[in-house]
Order: sequence, then C-alpha cells, then structure tokens
Amino acid sequence: MISIAARFHFKVVLALLLFLSLPGVAQPLSQVREIRKKKEIGWLKTFSEFLSIPNIASDSNNIRKNAAFIQEMMIRRQLTNVQLLESKEPGVPPVVYGEYLVPGASKTLIFYAHYDGQPVNPAQWATGLHPFVPALYSDAIFNKGQAITLPDSNGHTQPEWRIYGRGASDDKAGVAGLLYALEALQTARIRPSANIKFFFEGEEEAGSPHLEGILKQNRELLKADGWIICDGPVHQSGRKMIALGVRGDAHLEITVYGPVRPLHSGHYGNWVPNPAMTLSKLLAGMKDDRGRVSIRGFYDDVQPLTTAEKKALLAVPSADEQMKHELGFEEAETPGQSLMEAINQPSLNINGMASGNTGKLSANVIPTTAIANIDLRLVLGNDWQRQQQKVIDHIRSKGFMVIDYDPTATDRQSGKKLVKVTRGLDGYNAQRTDLSLPLVQKVKQAVQSTSKEPIVLLPTLGGSLPLYVFEKQLGAKTLIVPIANHDNNQHAENENIRLENFWNGIETYAAIMTIDW
Amino acid sequence: MISIAARFHFKVVLALLLFLSLPGVAQPLSQVREIRKKKEIGWLKTFSEFLSIPNIASDSNNIRKNAAFIQEMMIRRQLTNVQLLESKEPGVPPVVYGEYLVPGASKTLIFYAHYDGQPVNPAQWATGLHPFVPALYSDAIFNKGQAITLPDSNGHTQPEWRIYGRGASDDKAGVAGLLYALEALQTARIRPSANIKFFFEGEEEAGSPHLEGILKQNRELLKADGWIICDGPVHQSGRKMIALGVRGDAHLEITVYGPVRPLHSGHYGNWVPNPAMTLSKLLAGMKDDRGRVSIRGFYDDVQPLTTAEKKALLAVPSADEQMKHELGFEEAETPGQSLMEAINQPSLNINGMASGNTGKLSANVIPTTAIANIDLRLVLGNDWQRQQQKVIDHIRSKGFMVIDYDPTATDRQSGKKLVKVTRGLDGYNAQRTDLSLPLVQKVKQAVQSTSKEPIVLLPTLGGSLPLYVFEKQLGAKTLIVPIANHDNNQHAENENIRLENFWNGIETYAAIMTIDW
Repeated sequence: MISIAARFHFKVVLALLLFLSLPGVAQPLSQVREIRKKKEIGWLKTFSEFLSIPNIASDSNNIRKNAAFIQEMMIRRQLTNVQLLESKEPGVPPVVYGEYLVPGASKTLIFYAHYDGQPVNPAQWATGLHPFVPALYSDAIFNKGQAITLPDSNGHTQPEWRIYGRGASDDKAGVAGLLYALEALQTARIRPSANIKFFFEGEEEAGSPHLEGILKQNRELLKADGWIICDGPVHQSGRKMIALGVRGDAHLEITVYGPVRPLHSGHYGNWVPNPAMTLSKLLAGMKDDRGRVSIRGFYDDVQPLTTAEKKALLAVPSADEQMKHELGFEEAETPGQSLMEAINQPSLNINGMASGNTGKLSANVIPTTAIANIDLRLVLGNDWQRQQQKVIDHIRSKGFMVIDYDPTATDRQSGKKLVKVTRGLDGYNAQRTDLSLPLVQKVKQAVQSTSKEPIVLLPTLGGSLPLYVFEKQLGAKTLIVPIANHDNNQHAENENIRLENFWNGIETYAAIMTIDW
Repeated sequence: MISIAARFHFKVVLALLLFLSLPGVAQPLSQVREIRKKKEIGWLKTFSEFLSIPNIASDSNNIRKNAAFIQEMMIRRQLTNVQLLESKEPGVPPVVYGEYLVPGASKTLIFYAHYDGQPVNPAQWATGLHPFVPALYSDAIFNKGQAITLPDSNGHTQPEWRIYGRGASDDKAGVAGLLYALEALQTARIRPSANIKFFFEGEEEAGSPHLEGILKQNRELLKADGWIICDGPVHQSGRKMIALGVRGDAHLEITVYGPVRPLHSGHYGNWVPNPAMTLSKLLAGMKDDRGRVSIRGFYDDVQPLTTAEKKALLAVPSADEQMKHELGFEEAETPGQSLMEAINQPSLNINGMASGNTGKLSANVIPTTAIANIDLRLVLGNDWQRQQQKVIDHIRSKGFMVIDYDPTATDRQSGKKLVKVTRGLDGYNAQRTDLSLPLVQKVKQAVQSTSKEPIVLLPTLGGSLPLYVFEKQLGAKTLIVPIANHDNNQHAENENIRLENFWNGIETYAAIMTIDW
C-alpha cells in the first residue's frame, strides 16, 4: 500500500504531467483507461438513467426528455453552444448539438450518434427484461448470464457484463460513449487535437426524414474536416473496425385482402380466397430457390467496387463459419455466397409478416388481410425510389392491381386481385467514402493505436445510415467507427451492450479526438 | 279493451286449453312466439349474463362458472337429473346434462350445444367491443349499427338488433335458445312429444378431445332416437336449414427457423436465411395457381355423394353471388367452383401466419421464426391423421427435415432445412347421416312448419363437429339444426347473433320438441 502522503504526491505529479501534455500526445490510452475504471460505476448509473427514457422517434414527449438529458450531460462536461437543432416542421425530434473548441486547433471533427431507437414489442423481450427498464447481466442471456446489481461506486465491472435495454447499443452507447471519452480526456487534462462537435440525431431509426433539412439550415455550424459516425457493431471477430460506407435502405408494406370480415374456415374454407396464401405466393415469387431476387432489374444499377475497395474487402477476415455456428444455420440464403459478397449486393428482406392469429390464439378462420413489411438494402448506384418501384412493377406483373389505400367496395367488385403497397417515405441511398483520403488513414492509425489486433477496414457496412445526405448537403466526408458487440440484438428484442465493448469504444473515441494530424 | 273479469275468464279458458293439449299438437308456433315477446327482455338479460362469463376451454375456472350458470338455468326450468358429466381426466370442461322426461313419450331426443368458444384476441375487436362484455347494437356494425341499451322489461326488441360477444352465436345461442324453447312450451303448457335431454359440451372449440370418453361412460344415459345438434349458421339466404353432416377437421402448426437471435437486416440481410421467406415458399407450394391443393394424394380417399345427396345438393339455393358481393371478392379460390362444390371437398386453409412484427412495430430485422397455423377440413372417406400425414410428407418432399420440437444446436448444424410440425391432437373425421331415415323427414317437417319459405336441406355443412364420435360410440343419428345468422363472425372478432335469428331459432327448437311422431 502507498501511504496517504505518497498517494497525494503521486496525484500532484500526475496532474502536472497531464496538464503539460500536448494535443495528440501519444499513449493517452492508459490514462483514459485508468480514469474509466474510476468512473465506470457512475457512468453506468447515468447511462441507465438515459436508457430509462423511452426513445421511439414518434414518441415526442419522451424524445424531448432524451434531448434534455443529453443537453444536461453536455453542459456538465463544459460543452459550449449547446442547443437543439430543430426542423422547420413542428413535432420533429431535434438534433442535440454541442461543441468543445480547442484553441489553436486547425481541424474540426463532428461526431455523430443517434439517441432514438427502433420500435419495441415488449412481449418479445426475455422474461424479466423490458426495453425501457435497463438491466445489468453477468453475461449474455444466451450464455446463461444472470441479473446482477451494480456495485457501489468503489466497485468495478467485469468485461462480459451486459446492459440490456432499447438503445443500449444502438445508439445511446454512441452518445454516452463519446461524452465519456471527452470527460476522460478532460479529467486527464489531455487536450483534443481538433475542435470537437457533437451531433446527436433523434430520428435515425425512423429513416431520418428531416435530417437533410436540419443539415441545410446549419451548414456553417456543421463545417468540418470529417464526420465520425458512431453507430453499429464492430467486426464479428471482436476486432475494432472502421467502415467507409453504408448500404441504403427503403421500405415497403404489402397488404393483400381476403373477405371483408373474418370467416369460419369450415363454411367458406377454400372457396373464399385466403390472403395468407395469396401473400405467401406473392412473396415466394420474389426470390428464386437459390435466394436470388427474381424481380426484374433488381441487380441493375449496381456500381462495382474499385480495385482498392476490392483489395480492402479481401483483407477483411472471414467471420462466416463463426457466424453460422453462432446463429445456428449452415447454408447461406444464396448457397456458397459469403457474408461480404452478400452485403455488397442490394437485398430484399422480410421484416415481418402477419395474418390472423397463430399459436394459442389461432382460430379456425379465413383472415381478412395478410401483411408483410419488407426492407430493401441498396448499394452504390441504386436509387431508393427506383428500387421500390421495381418491387411494385413486379407485383403488377403478377396480375395484381396495386393501390395505396384500403380497397373500396367498387375496387373489390372489379374482379382484380388487389394489393395495397405503402412506400416507406424514409428511404435513402448508399454512400461510400474514398479509401485514399488522408482522413481515412489518420483515423485508421488512431483506432489501430488502441488495439493490439489489426483493425478491420470495411468498404461498406451491411447496415444503413443516411450518410449520402451529409455528402449531398455538406460535402462531408464520413467514416463509421462502431463500438458495439456484434451480438447486441440491435433493432430487436433483448438489445444489449457488452461492457468491454463500451469501454473499448470510449478508448477508440478518445484516440480519434487526439489524432496526431 | 277487455274488462278485467273477461280477461280473467279468457286466461282460465286458455290455460285449460293448454293443459288439455296433446303432445305434438299442431300450431304451437304462435303461442311460443307470443310468450317469447313477453319474455324476451328477461331472456336477453340472462343471456347477457351468460355471455359475460369467459368461455375459452382452457380457462378452467371460468368454464366451471359457465357450467354452474347452465345448471342453474336448467334447475329453474324444472329439469331433472341435472349433472356435470365429467371426463376421467382432471381439469377437463364438463358436459352439462339435464333432462325433461315426458310421461308416456316413446321417443327420446337429445339436444346438443356447446358453451365454450373460440380463442379471442380482444385487440382485433371493433372499438367499443370486448369479447366478454356483451353489447346490444341496433344493427350489424358493418350496417352502421349503434350501441343501444336494453329496453325495460315491458319493452320489445327489433329483429335487426344484434348482441356482440364471444359465444353470442357459437354456441351459447344454442344453449340458451334450447332452454328458452322449453320454457316457452312449459309456459304455454304444451307438452313435448318426446323425452328431452340436453347435452351441453364445454370443449367443442378445443376439438372435443374428451368427448368420446364422456360418451362412452354415459352410454345408458345417452340412449336416444336422435341427436339434434344446435350449432352453426342458417343458410346465407336466411332460410332455415337442416344439415345431415359435417366436414372433419385437423390442425397443423408449422414453424420454420431463421437465426437463433433476431438480426439486423442490414448487417446480415440476404446472407442469413429469412424464415418468413422460407415459410412463404413452403406454403405457396401447397396450392397451385388455381387454388387446388398440390399435396400428393390430398383428394384421394374422398367418398362420393350418393344419388340422393347429389339431388339434395342441387336443390340448395345458390348463395354464391350474394356472398361474393357481401364478402367483397369476385373469383373463388378455385376459379369457377361453387361454394357447394368447395365444401364437399377436403380443404387446406391458413388460419394465421406470423413472423417478426408488422406495421408500426415493424423493425429492420431478420426474424428468428415464422409460424403458420393450418386447418384441414375433411370429407367422408378422409382420415384426419392420414390427412395430416400427407401434409408432413409433402414438406419432407421439399427437402425439409421435419421435427416436432424446437431444434437443438446439433439439429441446426446438421445442414438440413428444419421445420417443426405440431400435429393438432384435436382432429376428427367427417360424418353424414342417411337422408332416407324417417327421423330426417320428421325433423324436416317440424322445421318446415315454422317457416313459410322452403327450408334448405344440406348434405353437409362446411364446418366441423365431432359427430362421427356420436355415431361410433352410441350409434347415434345426428341432425344439425343451426339457428345463427350467416354473418355472425363465428370464430372471429365481433361475433354476434341477430335477434330475429335467435327468436326464430327458439321456434324451430320448440317445433322439434313437439314433433308429431
């Protein structure tokens, strides 16, 4: 043990050393880690409070509470110019903005994260879990993790602990992780090497329909040398990762119609057309037996990868066998295709399907409707509305009359097969940042400096973010630096963040904030 | 106006006349009707109380409350030997039995109805309706009927009024209608022409798994010249109806598997197989594009109709155009096929289908499972378990490994396409009573005596009842005499009974109770 006097002396020396440290000084890593260890319990308490505020983009009241909570966190960390960037339209979740300007810094980085989350169906969460009652577990539930309580403020966490709750990884971990990274630097008196701006969106999971407007209104404020997008999971191998781009995304909701009222399946079964069967046939016809989308022109427009991107792709370690084992399947949807090949193609995926009732609620009826929600992922070259149109044209080619409202009696009497197709208005295109930019190399070095293992440089994420809007409106260069564990159940029930990922992520962000330009 | 003395005198004469009336006396119809008009408000009050008791077969506690309520109704109507016929297995809904023996009667009729109802999903019911809060409406909701309150006991009902609630038509209307018919005869002092026994089942909608055992244990008690099955809707034309048989029924639940945990559809979309697509393809392959089941041997085993049955079938008025208009479709599932042709064939119908979430809850995921519930209707010649097996064999023929449990990690690593198929254990075969039996003619005459319009004699109902069990265990002759309106939403949300149908049904039952043998 060190005596009190010695400890005091040690602290003073440390503080002096920290005070003298220059921007971009090497090895802030160990300092950030030590500070994290001291603060982690307090940080987790605050993070839990943050996760307790429901964050569905359409829930205005709670969205505002989230925004206020973040503003409060910003102010406590001496951020300046803290404000809500509002859409011109009323009722839109605001962007929470704050900045930490560094005298003399010649660079400006904006860190993006989002505080809203995907819709939740609490009934689907594991027993004992609720999306907005964050819970600490000793390990992943699928690894037999048990609910535990947070140690008191002198205690410490274990790397495998996880926090369950909506937004735990996607993407309140981004918001909190960034602010904690800055706090760690502040505590260590390490000055960031660039002006730091935070831009926390509140409707990313709703498709960012007002992002473009907000960017446009704040062009001056949002000038930067680079945008660091803090969202998504790291590589399945656990290695840290940078992604240069994202797939685009577009949605469609398809509804087919049976009888106007639910019918007894005995009295009318197989005379009155069953919408669940109609929908099954319609969906089944969208892919061939090898998982290829059989919609005309679906793979047209795809802009091929550059030589450098292809090379980068080849360097990405394959997680295919690991993931097949982990996810419990043997054969890819398109047999023989690798995950990397798959995410570099446009996709068509059924998110959900519903007709009548199943299981215990199942009754002997012909349902009145059958509904499917579909998401289309897009790669460079695809236009999201054109991609939607291809699906609609396909449905028409199968003899359906496509409408965008519930059919009237007259429509039903027309003798035509009716399908309602609702286009999601929240789509956007893919985006990819040029691999050869100096920014890419600098960020890569910074992230690599925090990890012994080689980091993964991915030409594109499979997931989507509205990055093409940043490029279009601001000419911004975006780089995605995710931190979450790959098995975080992002978008689904039992969303979680593994604590080691959270802590490593804070180190990653601190490293980017102190890039040696 | 008649003076009080004159009215008294009139009543005495009437009572004397009624007292002297013989079994099977003609024209009880107008008396039953007059009594009904006096009692209808009170009857509806009791009926509402009855409907307020939830009646899902698996809900033991409430099922017992229903049984007790019926016993009380029986006792109030001087029934004797009132008892619960229990299964030897514990926890099974009992049959409620009671009898009204007529001195000197040489015939015995047993009236069957069931007091349990189909599962409910309250969320699907119309605004303001709840399955177990019966509500009186001025007309069908789809005809813009409004919620109204019951008149006081001197008031009267209107023919188009409807009562909404689970069991309102299927089949508490049968239970109450029978007891009210007897009460009307008792009040009018018209003696039934046969010993009357009531047999009210409590798990018909769960597939009557214990009915056979209960019949077997009570063979002596249940000896009868005929069973009148009081369930189902009258003909779509509104005409009264007798059906000689029913289709059989069998169920299957099909579950296909995606990843062990829900996945972000961007990061894994179209690499990890999507169970909703797999299920769609599987279901789509079960029927050809003309609605014919394409499962090998599905239409084998069918025993053709007799010449007399074919003739009866030809005499059934076609409701096809009316129903197409009413239900909002133009083309039968198998184009050109009539409803009567359809219900004389085995069928395959999807009752429900579910994967992930749809609508507002839809999220960008690959779901973990996709489930479909299927019911198979059977005609004479089909065996319910053999019919299930044909579907299972079909699934196997598509390259799936069929299991009857959730797959283990080892199953998933086998590289086989996995499907869980759960056979419903509640299936049973079709049944049809011989058209030439004297009983059929007597019941036909009795029902015809209550209606100006020619009644409909249907060789088989499209729906199912476990009537083959009665024949097998008791050698019973069964005849189905339904009373509900055809648009009663039986088995689904917004189930209802139209009051004119209820009142007409009571007259029908009273007529059968007073058949002139």
